[in-house]
Formats: sequence, C-alpha cells, structure tokens
Amino acid sequence: MQRVEHHASFGGRQEVWQHASATLGCDMKLGVYLPPAALAGERCPVLYWLSGLTCTEQNFITKAGAQPHAARHGLIVVAPDTSPRDPERTLGVADDDAYDLGQGAGFYVNATEPPWAAHYRMQDYVAEELPALVERSFGAGAQRGICGHSMGGHGALVTALRHPGRYRSVSAFAPIVAPSQVPWGRKAFGAYLGADAQAWKEWDAVELLRDARERLPLLVDQGADDEFLASQLRPELLRSACEAAGHPLQLRMQPGYDHSYYFVASFLADHFAHHAAALRG
Amino acid sequence: MQRVEHHASFGGRQEVWQHASATLGCDMKLGVYLPPAALAGERCPVLYWLSGLTCTEQNFITKAGAQPHAARHGLIVVAPDTSPRDPERTLGVADDDAYDLGQGAGFYVNATEPPWAAHYRMQDYVAEELPALVERSFGAGAQRGICGHSMGGHGALVTALRHPGRYRSVSAFAPIVAPSQVPWGRKAFGAYLGADAQAWKEWDAVELLRDARERLPLLVDQGADDEFLASQLRPELLRSACEAAGHPLQLRMQPGYDHSYYFVASFLADHFAHHAAALRG
Repeated sequence: MQRVEHHASFGGRQEVWQHASATLGCDMKLGVYLPPAALAGERCPVLYWLSGLTCTEQNFITKAGAQPHAARHGLIVVAPDTSPRDPERTLGVADDDAYDLGQGAGFYVNATEPPWAAHYRMQDYVAEELPALVERSFGAGAQRGICGHSMGGHGALVTALRHPGRYRSVSAFAPIVAPSQVPWGRKAFGAYLGADAQAWKEWDAVELLRDARERLPLLVDQGADDEFLASQLRPELLRSACEAAGHPLQLRMQPGYDHSYYFVASFLADHFAHHAAALRG
Repeated sequence: MQRVEHHASFGGRQEVWQHASATLGCDMKLGVYLPPAALAGERCPVLYWLSGLTCTEQNFITKAGAQPHAARHGLIVVAPDTSPRDPERTLGVADDDAYDLGQGAGFYVNATEPPWAAHYRMQDYVAEELPALVERSFGAGAQRGICGHSMGGHGALVTALRHPGRYRSVSAFAPIVAPSQVPWGRKAFGAYLGADAQAWKEWDAVELLRDARERLPLLVDQGADDEFLASQLRPELLRSACEAAGHPLQLRMQPGYDHSYYFVASFLADHFAHHAAALRG
C-alpha cells in the first residue's frame, strides 16, 4: 500500500492511497480522510462513500466539502474508485467507450459475464476487501456506515441490504433505486450480469427491500430539478417498496436542486449527522 | 451576458456567467454565488475571489467549500478567471507554453509590453469592469471585499492597496507578497511590465505598503508546509513591510498545511467572518 497524496485538512488529513487489489486484479486508489481524533490515536468509525458514473476517488474528496463534517464527528471517510482500472492497458481490464459502461461505471456488482467477470467484482471489493484493508491499515473501528451518490447511491443501498449486520447506517443522494427498471441499470446489468433479468434482482434495492432481514433506516435526498429524476432515479419506486415492506425511509425532495456535487454538498451535513448518530451514538 | 451554469447550493445559487469584456478584448467567464438573501431581493455586499496560477473560474467554486459561508453571511461571491482567454485562437490573445506565463497566469496587472499589452489588463478588469458589471447585473451592493490565493493573494493585496476606498476588507491565502523578489513574479513582471524593475513596484504589495493611503487590516493565512513558502511566497517580507509601515497584519502560519485548496477550505470560514464583519458590520 502506497500513499500517493496527503494534505492537512480541517485539523485532520486527506490522503489518497494506492494498493494492489486481489479482488479486482488491478491497482486501486482510494481517498481516506483521517479526522483529528484518528490522528490522536482513537479507533474511529468509518463512513464509506460510493461515487457515481465517471467518477474516480477524486470527485468526492475535492468537491463535496466533507472534511469539516468528518472532522467534527470524528469519522474516517473512505472513498474508493468506481471500477477496476487499467491505465496502462496491460491487465486486460475490459472497458467501453460509453461513459456508463466499463471503467468508471462498475455499478458495485460482481459481474458474471465475459468480458467483465474477470475484474469487475466491485461488490466484493467494497464490502469485503476494502473494510478489511481499512480496518487493518488505518486503525479504524469496525463500526461502518455507507453512503453514495447516483450509481453510488444504488451501491450504498444494495451493499447494505446484501450484508445485514455489516453496516450500522446507510444513506444516499439521488440514488438509482431500481436499476432493473431504468436505462442506466438495464444497460449495465445486461452487460455485467447477462440477459436474464431474474439475476438482476439481487442487485436492485427496490427488489432487495422486499425480503430485507434488517431494517436500517434510509435517509435519501433527491433534487427535485435533477435532470435524471424521471428517467433514471425514480424515487417513487423506493417509497413504494419501503411502504410495502414496512422499511423506514426518510425521502427528502429538495426543490431546485440538480444532480451535481453542489446538491450533495448542500445536504451532506445532515447525512454525517445521520451516520454519526448510529456510528458513535 | 449569458448564464452558462446554474446550480442550487445551500439555499442560494452557484452560477457561471460569460460576457464580452471590453477591457480584455475577449469573452470571460466568472463564477457568481448568490446567497439566499440576494435571491430574496436584498442588495448584498460582494466578496471578490482571485485565484492562483493555472486556475479558471471553476477551481474556487468547485473546491473551496465557500458556499455555506457565503449563504450564512449573506455575501455574493464573484470568482473571475485568471487571465484573458482565447480558446478558439482567433483573437490574438498572447500565450506561452509555461504554466506561469500567459493564459491562466495574468498576475492581475495591466501589461505594458508586447505581445501582452493588447489583452492582459487584468487589473482594470478586476478593479473596474467587473465591479461595475456585478453591481449592475446582480443587484449587488457597493460594499466590496477582496480575497485570493497565491497569485490571487498577490492580486487581492495589490488591488486593494492600489484603490484606497474601493474595498472595505482584504485577506489572502498563501499570497505572493513580493513578486519583484521571487521567480514567479520576476518572470511574469519581466514579460508583462518590461525589464525595468522600477515599474514593478506599483504591482508589488511589499512595495505598495510603504506609502499606502489606507490601512485596511490584512488577514493572511500561510501553510507552514507549503512547497512554495521559501522560494515564492516569503511571508516574512510582508511582516517586515507591515511592521515598518505600521500596517495592521494578522499573519497566521498554519502548521502542516500545504498550498492546495484543502488548505484554503480549512480556514475559509475565518476569512468570511473577517470580510462579513467589515462588509455587513
């Protein structure tokens, strides 16, 4: 593991690390914010952040304004990249010219179909390898929260729902709540998981909510002027699924807000408070 | 004037505008944050932000986390680009392959030398055309503060010192305080202002402080681990100049901090408080 960036930030340290991922079969970068409490030796809880389409580990750490919240609440924040990578094109990591498939668009699933299955195992990476690495390398506690934006909101919901007991808190910004029913999800799932839509249900929050074994309260913010609201995000499907399952949901439609990090930054303090209450409460 | 971006942000709106600048002879973009108070019709004071080498109007508005402070204090924040631009290469705006000369490196001076003199009039743009445009177009008040980072910290100090009475408050992050004495400044001033170092004194904060007609208190934050500290920034020259002139200075050396926007974001709340006290007090 190699530290490739470090910056003092709000009394803590924003770092970027690179490591050889056994799960993904390539080098991966991750943003790690260490709050002042962690630098002082405390075993702090960890909030995992999953980013959206086209993002790397950089977008959240440079644009969301997360560090003051993490510093105040004493949370380590880990922001991985969104897919396996192959910058030198020497590892055979599959890719596609489209922004919404391949590198930068891993959708946090374990792919089963060629040419993706060899490297695209982002679910195992995020839910297994990454927490083990973080808890071993940064003196982090085992209290975990998970949050994300857009494709990463889908990732946060699905990862928490698939691993009852592993996360104490979950929230999302403008998540893709029903990938099986929208163009981004149908394209990605068709490629990564195959044509049989039955297999997609294990990776679809609205489907997983039906039989969830744990009822972690969901906090979801959604911009009412989000350009992807009606076509890709469809929060009404999440509301119906939660109502049908008796799953606690706070869905906040935010008038005037779009899909950008300006939206994320505007409501991030509330998400940190939500996670901190569960992780440190 | 044309609005090219707009995003709801912390109850206000982060916008980007493009306009034909008469001073610079090209189209220019600027970031404009309108706080909730401005959207409600109040004539809010304006804080001008001047960015550093290689920046456009985007860096500050995406990376500094300024919007919550601006919203809280009811300040409009205007972040112009750092030089004239000529993306289509049709206007004859001079440029240079180096990152520290030409486009992205205007140094907030009025150039006198060919090939720069025709377009590189950033001082007149920032101090004259821009405030007139902002006060006319956004219902802004005439209370002005000015702040900046690195080359933009130099710009903020020099612009305030050259225009007594025009700004009520000034501050800077890691400013180039004595461009005449450091490599970045000597290269840029030699090109823009000519070989005679006598002409540089009008554009050098340490020189201008000697005979300043106004004693606006300076707030300056400087990272103690800034990679440009000893070679380019030299805050001790600012301290000596202020002591010699009896000019009020709060210079804060911040242990561990570098030259990045992580540093700027960490101390920006204090700068907003400094400006708000003068602009709204």
